[in-house]
Amino acid sequence: MPYTQSIGTPVREIETPALLVDLDVMEENLALMAKRLEGTGMSLRAHAKTHKSPWFAKKQIALGAVGVCCQKVSEAEVMVGGGVENVLVSSEITAVSKLKRLAALARHARLMLVVDHPQGVAMLAEAVTAAGAEIDVLVDVEVGHARCGVEPGEPAVELARRVEAAKGLELKGIQAYHGWAQHVDGFAERREVYAGAIARMRETVDAFEAAGLPLEIKSGGGTGSWRWDVESGVLNELQAGSYLFMDSHYLRIGGENSDIYDDFKPSLFVLTTVVSSPVPERVVVDAGHKALASDSGLAPCLELEGAVHTRASDEHGMLELSPASRRPEIGETLLFQPSHCDPTINLYDVYHGVRGGMEEGVLEAVIPVAARGCVW
Amino acid sequence: MPYTQSIGTPVREIETPALLVDLDVMEENLALMAKRLEGTGMSLRAHAKTHKSPWFAKKQIALGAVGVCCQKVSEAEVMVGGGVENVLVSSEITAVSKLKRLAALARHARLMLVVDHPQGVAMLAEAVTAAGAEIDVLVDVEVGHARCGVEPGEPAVELARRVEAAKGLELKGIQAYHGWAQHVDGFAERREVYAGAIARMRETVDAFEAAGLPLEIKSGGGTGSWRWDVESGVLNELQAGSYLFMDSHYLRIGGENSDIYDDFKPSLFVLTTVVSSPVPERVVVDAGHKALASDSGLAPCLELEGAVHTRASDEHGMLELSPASRRPEIGETLLFQPSHCDPTINLYDVYHGVRGGMEEGVLEAVIPVAARGCVW
Repeated sequence: MPYTQSIGTPVREIETPALLVDLDVMEENLALMAKRLEGTGMSLRAHAKTHKSPWFAKKQIALGAVGVCCQKVSEAEVMVGGGVENVLVSSEITAVSKLKRLAALARHARLMLVVDHPQGVAMLAEAVTAAGAEIDVLVDVEVGHARCGVEPGEPAVELARRVEAAKGLELKGIQAYHGWAQHVDGFAERREVYAGAIARMRETVDAFEAAGLPLEIKSGGGTGSWRWDVESGVLNELQAGSYLFMDSHYLRIGGENSDIYDDFKPSLFVLTTVVSSPVPERVVVDAGHKALASDSGLAPCLELEGAVHTRASDEHGMLELSPASRRPEIGETLLFQPSHCDPTINLYDVYHGVRGGMEEGVLEAVIPVAARGCVW
Repeated sequence: MPYTQSIGTPVREIETPALLVDLDVMEENLALMAKRLEGTGMSLRAHAKTHKSPWFAKKQIALGAVGVCCQKVSEAEVMVGGGVENVLVSSEITAVSKLKRLAALARHARLMLVVDHPQGVAMLAEAVTAAGAEIDVLVDVEVGHARCGVEPGEPAVELARRVEAAKGLELKGIQAYHGWAQHVDGFAERREVYAGAIARMRETVDAFEAAGLPLEIKSGGGTGSWRWDVESGVLNELQAGSYLFMDSHYLRIGGENSDIYDDFKPSLFVLTTVVSSPVPERVVVDAGHKALASDSGLAPCLELEGAVHTRASDEHGMLELSPASRRPEIGETLLFQPSHCDPTINLYDVYHGVRGGMEEGVLEAVIPVAARGCVW
């Protein structure tokens, strides 16, 4: 267990770099998503790859989520161990040893897995029957993301028939996920790209219906596409994760009536400390690549107007100050907004849950990132 | 403790993604660095920010390293807890709570800290005297890296005098670290840039000598500059870390007589599994941003000639195959070389130490990344 501060510690006295959650804002996001899906025929299947924590999963389920999805078997093991009873593993699993673990886990919770290849179907069926278990299966359909997934329409139907024929596997429907479309800049542009994904989902649903295949579950979408997933009515499960926390990459893609994507509000921050400022125009903080994921760009500093986060090394972040910027004191704390929430959270063993805001708030909960590093 | 395989498991049956160390190659690198420094007047102060593991630190010390350096107080706590008795914290520490932790730790091991600002000196002196401890101090000199550090020559001397005057602090010399110079492309180009760093070190050493200041320790340099650090004779401690493992970024900067930097050999790999290949030109593996740090570019795949790692998402890596590439089987394992060793290691809870190579070898040791996530 890592070094943490006592409950009640003032937020700016938490050891840095620290991953902070503004509990007030997080709870607003939590409630808002539940409210938005109410009465739409679409349920939340919260993506646990974002928070990696049964603590959050249980709050999502308490507000109506049907369960969670996980990308990895190890994540699913942590969720089931933490009391989550309905888990979709939303990535293809193609290793015999992992399929054995999944089949064993399926005896302790309601598990579902996706497939996109006949070989995957055969491997899964073998593992499941060897374990004397049964497992629900979705056919993973490629709807434009260009990653995994079988082609929509007839190829998806053909794979579904193999699932139906396999012993121990129960076909439940489809998964249709388009990740990058959710990050397209501009509301209208994003809607247009996503319309293509919806057309491919619809084509597949029609083909399944024509073939008389089960379609109890149609799972996909996310934080960046939720309103079109609701509007189109093709899917009945939304795989949103980031909405709880948001990040600077999500924010800058633009909303319906705004330059920023403001459907949900940022609740995740990284607190840092100024460790050096050798020249007036440079400030060095104690958070680098090991504290702030940089795959979606360097995280913006939310304090010090005019300061730009221009460089990072493993343990240091460098801010360039404009002549108008205030030069902070050595030892002063500065707040950053992660540019990408999922891989940033995966760097930390715990969240520091703060009540009362990022200035005057206090530490209310130390929340384990229980599935941190569960990539296998 | 994460899920791991039994000792003796064949390397290609280890659950993926997994961080692998080729123990044979790692031990060669370990011995080679020790041999290169033998009789040069320069000792290794191995940088533990790379391996984050007392397991490796103790092997370095057994072969002559004087101790380790750490970037963070939490790393130092793990090293001391793991039996390492001589630790330099090579980054400025400017938070009162952390200085208290350092002062407490200084009663259990020989600790040294760097300073680059009068305020840092005052804060450290206060923490140390309050704890009834003593701590060794180096003046951190800016030699071209443009991150932390006081200017060379007289400004460094002035700060050193403050250290000498402070209660509880023992001035031991200087730290002079130039990180990015070690990564300049081309042997001649790198040597030229690093010559500027050496000149600034020398200026500072001369100024310290003229002022009669202690210079017992002159610590700096690393894997990319070791031969000029040895050649110049200015420093007496080398802060190398990456040499144990190497990475694709280091390799491509070029060596003395080669296109690749081949002073040390790659011993660190990430084993992945093919989870999907929906079209002939695309292969998807189970390792994305959470398994392979991408701050220095996407990690190259070492197998499948002609395959290029073109995209990554959080849990997936996408390879584009050339028409001549062999299309792998679903479930096949593929080996990647991390593009940057330090932040990649920091993603994993354990190393899988493999004996006998990456094809036929077996798991010999599960080595905890004990200071993983120790960023605070």
